[in-house]
This record gives sequence, C-alpha cells and structure tokens, in this order.
Amino acid sequence: MLPPLSHRTVQVFGGTADAQGTARHDVLAAEVPVALVFNGISHAVMMATPQDVEAFALGFALSEGILDAAADCRGIEVNTVAAAEAGLPAGVDAIEVQLEISTRSFERLKGRRRSLAGRTGCGVCGVESFAGLELQSEPLPPHDWVARVDLPTVLRAIDALPAWQRLNAEAGAIHAAGWATLEGELVAVLEDVGRHNALDKLIGTLARMARLGEPGFVVLSSRGSHELVRKCTRVGIAALATISAPTAMGVHVAELAGLRLWGLCRAPRAVLYAAGAVPA
Amino acid sequence: MLPPLSHRTVQVFGGTADAQGTARHDVLAAEVPVALVFNGISHAVMMATPQDVEAFALGFALSEGILDAAADCRGIEVNTVAAAEAGLPAGVDAIEVQLEISTRSFERLKGRRRSLAGRTGCGVCGVESFAGLELQSEPLPPHDWVARVDLPTVLRAIDALPAWQRLNAEAGAIHAAGWATLEGELVAVLEDVGRHNALDKLIGTLARMARLGEPGFVVLSSRGSHELVRKCTRVGIAALATISAPTAMGVHVAELAGLRLWGLCRAPRAVLYAAGAVPA
Repeated sequence: MLPPLSHRTVQVFGGTADAQGTARHDVLAAEVPVALVFNGISHAVMMATPQDVEAFALGFALSEGILDAAADCRGIEVNTVAAAEAGLPAGVDAIEVQLEISTRSFERLKGRRRSLAGRTGCGVCGVESFAGLELQSEPLPPHDWVARVDLPTVLRAIDALPAWQRLNAEAGAIHAAGWATLEGELVAVLEDVGRHNALDKLIGTLARMARLGEPGFVVLSSRGSHELVRKCTRVGIAALATISAPTAMGVHVAELAGLRLWGLCRAPRAVLYAAGAVPA
Repeated sequence: MLPPLSHRTVQVFGGTADAQGTARHDVLAAEVPVALVFNGISHAVMMATPQDVEAFALGFALSEGILDAAADCRGIEVNTVAAAEAGLPAGVDAIEVQLEISTRSFERLKGRRRSLAGRTGCGVCGVESFAGLELQSEPLPPHDWVARVDLPTVLRAIDALPAWQRLNAEAGAIHAAGWATLEGELVAVLEDVGRHNALDKLIGTLARMARLGEPGFVVLSSRGSHELVRKCTRVGIAALATISAPTAMGVHVAELAGLRLWGLCRAPRAVLYAAGAVPA
C-alpha cells in the first residue's frame, strides 16, 4: 500500500534561521488519486489519504446511497496502480478499488449515474441543476436517546479526539471523524486530508463492525457543512458534533432531517444548533 | 441579492449557562446553491457564500480553463431564484449566473463538457478516470521577481489578512483569498465558506481589475491543496502562501508547474515548500 504520510526536506525561514533558511525534515499528509470501480465500471476518482481505503470505499457507497446496506457489497479489492500505468505524472501512484455490489444496487446506480456523477468529495460539485442537490433527505426516525447527546457527553468525546489523531499528530492539517457512544466514549476514529473522506471512512468502518444504527454520535474535527450532515442522515446517524461552526445550510439540512447538531464544541462550551427529532 | 450571513437563535451550553442552555443570537456563514450557466447551458451548481458572485463566476471560468481571458466573457447576469421555483426546500433560495462567452470558448466547453463536469468545488470530484485529474499543468514561465516573495513579504501580507476578513470576523469559519504586491501589500481580499470559491472570487476580481499577470502572490487562509495550486497556475499566478500546511500533492503539483509555494506562514516563521521557477 501507499504511505499515508510523505517525508521531504523543506526550508524553514524566520526565528533563529538565517536568510537562506534552515533545511528541516518535514512530514506532510499524502493524498493520492483513488478510483472507485463498481462491478467493473469506474464511478469516481477522488483524492484521499491512502489509509483505510476499503472502509472509505464502503462508506462512500453507503453515504452516497449507492448501497442500502453493507451486505449489498459482496467484495472489495484494493490495488495500487503505478503512475505510468495510470497515465499520471511521475511519483503520483494511484489506488483502484474494485467493489462488487448486488445486481439490484448496480442496476440502480447505472440508472442514476448521470445525476450522481461527481456527488463526491464536496457533496455537490458535478451537479448541474438545482434539483440534483438533493438537500432534503428522508427524515430520521425519532429516537428517545438523542437528547442524551448532551454537553458533557459531547465534550468528553471531543476532548478524547486528539489522542486518536495519529496522522495529524505527525503531519497536521488532517481531519478526523470519530464515533462515540452515549457515554461519550470514542470507539473508532478515522483520518483523512478531506473531511468528507474521513466521515466516509468512519461510516465504512461502522458498517463493517455492524454498529451502524446503534445509538451514538459522530464527532468531526471540521466545521458542520451540509454535505456532512447529509452523509450522516443518509446512513441513519442521528447526532453530529463538530469542533468548528456549522454553516447556515448545515443547520437547515439538519433541521429538515431531524439531526441533532452541535457545533463550536470547545470546552467548557458547545452550541446546540438543532435539537434533533425525539418521539412526541 | 441574498445575504452572505445568516442570523439565528441558538442554545449555548456550558460556562455560566444552566442545564437548559442560554439562548444567544448567532451569526453563521450562508452558502447557497449557485448555478453557472454558459450561453444558456447549465454547467455546474456549487454551494457558495452569496457575495461577489460575478467575480466568482468569472474566476471559476478562468481557473477551470473555460475562458482563456476575461475578454472571452461578453456579459454576466446574476439572478436570485426563489426556492419554490428552483425546486429546493423552503428557505433555500438560489442564485443563477448567466455568462455569455465567446463562440470559441463555448465550442471548446461543449467539446469537453463530459470530462470537465464536476471539476469544481474540490477540483477532482466528478472525475471518473485518472486521466481526468489533469495534475500536470503547463509549466509557468520563469519570473525574476518570484524570489522577491520572501519571508518578510509573505508575513506582511499574511499579518494583514485578518483585518480584511469582514465576514469571518462576524461569523467565523469563512476562508479568505488575498492578492499581495511584491511589497506584501494586500490589494484585494475575497471571502467564502469554501476555499476554492474564495480563490475563484479573487481570480475573477483580479481579472476585472486587469491585474491578472502582474507580479505578486496569493495568500490563502487555508491549507495548500493541489486544486488550489492548479487554479493558480492555470491563470498564471506564480506564487502562493497559505496559513496552514500544504498536502504532499500540493507540493508535487507546485514543483511540476514551477509555482513558488509557502506554507505554515505563522510569524515569525514560514516554510518554503517549492522555490518556483526563476530564469536560468
């Protein structure tokens, strides 16, 4: 597999360094082209950090509605493709993920290939018309436990996040998505340069652990944008807490779907932007 | 026009607040669907902060290679589309930008519609094959002045950036892209929830000021990812300084194109990741 971090020598200027700068060993987040191929048909190429790639592919397929359940994925094969073979510049090796999916899922995918194309990294690009945005998702079923995702619980999970961010500790500028129980205990944290990718890796990991649908919530190192809210609601995740602020559209989409949305989660405070759906 | 900021009442928990939280007036970054329509053909819909929308449309068309020069754009018309009319959820009004472009640009656009579709918000999504990534761009012509984008110059521009970030001061979590002279003086700063959008707004603004191609450099509040590097090189911008770290691919693409790339620009230090092309 390709390494998730890249090492190089850079010139640091300022501080005690002289005018020519000081050479320093530096660690950067790697991102490589990842092609997702469903039943032999190339669907999308995204730039992602090459770690937990199987989980990424499965999570993407679930959060983008290509698969209804992990069981619709019969197999995943990950291969490295050399730069020359992929037609990429020297040094840019790539990854190809072959997913074998159920006939039903594949037929549906072929049917909506056109409108779905590009609904990937940022959630809306590639969409050519307003109708393609799909801002309004199926409302989440109300859950009694949603109100238990309260301030102490959210802060416990957020506070625990950095210790799990191993790539970020080395390279910085890497997002993390974690899954927390109703006690605020983290059970899985996935990292990627892209926040959408980190969330997809988490969703794929939960699916493989058969924990998707359990009570709990997602914590994200980023802001709460509408694409992240939609990825959550699409797989039945009912609560989300982000370190940064949400966008207005993120809050709007959360309200439409009944997702409980916390933002600006920085001890000792956090802000509740949408309460979420609880049984009447 | 639609407002770039959104006001709402939220519940703040923690600190001196009681268990029910304290209601507080909050300001959030707005992002609305923006459809770009070239000569009557809808090309892409992106979520963007509704400010400087004309500059955004022009900059996107330039940085994505739809137009070779601002003169290829004969006219831009911006209209608000009500939610009901756009088929969007209540409260989600949208913007449609009609660009009238030269016949030559339009014919070329139609020709590569398929491979370009989706090459928008995050630079790669929508791309279905490795070849579509276009990581290797035309090398920049060497410039003598590039070496003058040095530590003091970069830090002067970065230090001046916050004072220009008016939306960010109110709502937070909003990116900024600025243009600085070789003296490190900022001459324009544009804001958007999305960093790619902020850069496109800046490029469009420079094009309208007829300053694209002048010596100078871009400063960005974000990390240096490869899509941002590519947008710069495509319009001839030869130097870029970002507050956060670049990704490994950002550095690689900068080296391929000969762009001078500074990162982690935080006084008193900054890191030079790629020196850029200077005449031999």
